[in-house]
Amino acid sequence: MFDSRLPTVPNLTTAHTGPLLSFEKLLLDRSAEIEAWFRKQFHRTTAPFYCSVDLRNAGYKLAPVDTNLFPAGFNNLNPVFEPLAVHALQSAFERLMPSACNVVLVPENHTRNLHYLEAVATLRDLIGKAGYKVRIGSIIPGLTEAQNFDLPSGKKLLLEPLQRENDQVFLDGFRPCLVLLHNDLSGGRPDILEGLRQPVVPHPKLGWSDRLKTQHFALYKEVAEDFAEAFGIDAWLLNPLFRNCGEINFARREGEECLASNVELLLEDIKAKYAAYGVKDDPFVIIKADAGTYGMGIMSVKSVDEVRNMNRDTRKKMSSMKEGKENTGVIIQEGVYTFEKWRDPGSDASDMTAGSVPPGDMVAEPVVYMIDHYVVGGFYRVHGGRSNTENLNAPGAQFRQLAFNNACNCPEPAAAPDAEPNRFYAYGVVARLALLAAARETAAVTASDAQ
Amino acid sequence: MFDSRLPTVPNLTTAHTGPLLSFEKLLLDRSAEIEAWFRKQFHRTTAPFYCSVDLRNAGYKLAPVDTNLFPAGFNNLNPVFEPLAVHALQSAFERLMPSACNVVLVPENHTRNLHYLEAVATLRDLIGKAGYKVRIGSIIPGLTEAQNFDLPSGKKLLLEPLQRENDQVFLDGFRPCLVLLHNDLSGGRPDILEGLRQPVVPHPKLGWSDRLKTQHFALYKEVAEDFAEAFGIDAWLLNPLFRNCGEINFARREGEECLASNVELLLEDIKAKYAAYGVKDDPFVIIKADAGTYGMGIMSVKSVDEVRNMNRDTRKKMSSMKEGKENTGVIIQEGVYTFEKWRDPGSDASDMTAGSVPPGDMVAEPVVYMIDHYVVGGFYRVHGGRSNTENLNAPGAQFRQLAFNNACNCPEPAAAPDAEPNRFYAYGVVARLALLAAARETAAVTASDAQ
Repeated sequence: MFDSRLPTVPNLTTAHTGPLLSFEKLLLDRSAEIEAWFRKQFHRTTAPFYCSVDLRNAGYKLAPVDTNLFPAGFNNLNPVFEPLAVHALQSAFERLMPSACNVVLVPENHTRNLHYLEAVATLRDLIGKAGYKVRIGSIIPGLTEAQNFDLPSGKKLLLEPLQRENDQVFLDGFRPCLVLLHNDLSGGRPDILEGLRQPVVPHPKLGWSDRLKTQHFALYKEVAEDFAEAFGIDAWLLNPLFRNCGEINFARREGEECLASNVELLLEDIKAKYAAYGVKDDPFVIIKADAGTYGMGIMSVKSVDEVRNMNRDTRKKMSSMKEGKENTGVIIQEGVYTFEKWRDPGSDASDMTAGSVPPGDMVAEPVVYMIDHYVVGGFYRVHGGRSNTENLNAPGAQFRQLAFNNACNCPEPAAAPDAEPNRFYAYGVVARLALLAAARETAAVTASDAQ
Repeated sequence: MFDSRLPTVPNLTTAHTGPLLSFEKLLLDRSAEIEAWFRKQFHRTTAPFYCSVDLRNAGYKLAPVDTNLFPAGFNNLNPVFEPLAVHALQSAFERLMPSACNVVLVPENHTRNLHYLEAVATLRDLIGKAGYKVRIGSIIPGLTEAQNFDLPSGKKLLLEPLQRENDQVFLDGFRPCLVLLHNDLSGGRPDILEGLRQPVVPHPKLGWSDRLKTQHFALYKEVAEDFAEAFGIDAWLLNPLFRNCGEINFARREGEECLASNVELLLEDIKAKYAAYGVKDDPFVIIKADAGTYGMGIMSVKSVDEVRNMNRDTRKKMSSMKEGKENTGVIIQEGVYTFEKWRDPGSDASDMTAGSVPPGDMVAEPVVYMIDHYVVGGFYRVHGGRSNTENLNAPGAQFRQLAFNNACNCPEPAAAPDAEPNRFYAYGVVARLALLAAARETAAVTASDAQ
């Protein structure tokens, strides 16, 4: 069950850990109040069914940079914590449907990505272990019969075509009482899931056909400010600044002046914050598709000239998104350095480096997984080919996912604020703030649906 | 976090695994229905706050032999599963008190047993990690000021005298909204906990001053029969037969004839069951104090003559219980062989053996821990100085507790029915049946209290 090759915690190397250390100390000293605060919040606003949050840890700042409501890395979590995920699934399902019930899991439509299919198989098995009958209902257009996949792990995955009769979906010989959506609907909301009698969780309007990162981060800003006010800290330590610009068309160069001026303003704001905290790093901003995912349509810039002088390739890259959709809007987000670095034990992989990272070191960023309002583990994205200002969600030979060795819910008051269990606890706190923002997003969608 | 010295699963060596294997196969094949059954049961009847269950695994039979509502071995659980206990505590507390709240933990009165104090410290820390402020309120008679203990683990434990004003208890500078009882009240229900405005959990009437093993096992029998009927098996596979005899006074030899005749009848019943299943082992019965604990007041007999010919020492042993109380009643319970054996890797500890156990092997029995309706781990009691028909809860040089390497909630359908995760899942199922009996016991006490 335990894999001795699991990593310990990456090294955090930055000169500016002061503010974060005092934040971590606050988390430790006041963890009972913090947990009570979260309890109250999630009592008031139900947590999403599942969620993963990408964090960046600059030492002086720890912030979410993306919140995913269809988390696809369950196969990358530490199997030691599988029982935690099973508990959390039981809690989530118990609230949704106290009695016996079959679940149909609706995955993404791409079947060539075996990593993704492994994640689906892991999720399916976790749901089975939680005590629910579950089968996979695919909405791949034109799929008419069940298709079996033999996965590298040795698992099998059977995709069955999801069928509909009146206001209910079903599979051959299987009547689900709940549709668990694991398709981010980048390609649009499919008719087969509209107006169903069975609940669809998460709500299809939380897919990328409707959702916007700017809406999420506007809600996150409120959450971070609420938390900061309750515990007497500067919300900036947890909150990446952002701006947006309405409609943009990269190919036709529409909206570019708005983009440039907002990048300029945001760089100024970050510079002021860096000055206030004595941070010597260069401010940078991340421009990413407002409805984007899969690491597509993202660029990192340190000066407004990089926006003004975009070449044709960059424009093309920025305008294309998952499922061939065109990018029509962006979030302009404060870039957060990641100063966490991973070095393989005994390695001198000097080819696996880039930018500011010393030879042998790989840039790492934590991704925290949650089910219901429980943290159930996570992993580090580790990249040997990217610098500490770049998006690390870029699979390839120098990209890896290292499972957390810690469940993030066990702070150790007797240890130093930055000791392993406490750093993981801090991840869990900030990730749950993003989860709370996602909960408010969900509540808004559900409320508008009920009207 | 992970201790590489942790055991794998003990060896199960018996010629008669047929019925149990088919039971384990049933658990695997129908785990979704079984979990749904448990969900319905615990939806109807709230699980106790915490509980541990001693199991015996004979290969042909897997049954609980004791159910403890004040489990004292949290320090013996695998620290890898600490996050599970934290989740489960959060679930339990959320139901009891959704908002912020302080908890006072009331431990046993004996302070010389450092193992016990380690368990209290572990429980305290788990509650802290779950996000509640917790302090220890002792009811040791005459304790007037706080007393600090330095424990072998390096932890500190501060026992503060529990104080009362009108209908509320408190500590200096600490107003709890919940009293978490971790004192089995063998010495009687103390006045300071009577008629409090704050809830006391578990209910003090579930202490050994009121509780009887015969009542628990009468309820367990019903639960086992319900489960057996729902899933089409013989309840005996899960249920230890028992009889009782009303008042007994060992010292004055009162009630002895009743005891002897019931032992005789029970041995006959077991013999018939063994014959039906082709079991060649000798039937035996366990006689233990009906309100007893701590492994006191227990004897194992294979013939009625052992009861008729008890010597003075045995009588004395059988009549004395925890806190100097006299034993006035017993449960006469079918003895269940434990055919699980543990051998230290590379060991030839031929001195650490007894009875029917080969040299180097030690007898093992599983103890499963639960919080709310969740299994959170467990350990094996391993004893090198006792045979497979004896009570193993007898601390001493040849006694050890080996933490489970498995959380009991992750069956593996692809593996054999007796593969490690599946054997642990079977433990978890049978332990939760005993938990359900304890839930019904609790409901009965609470209902009688409300009248």
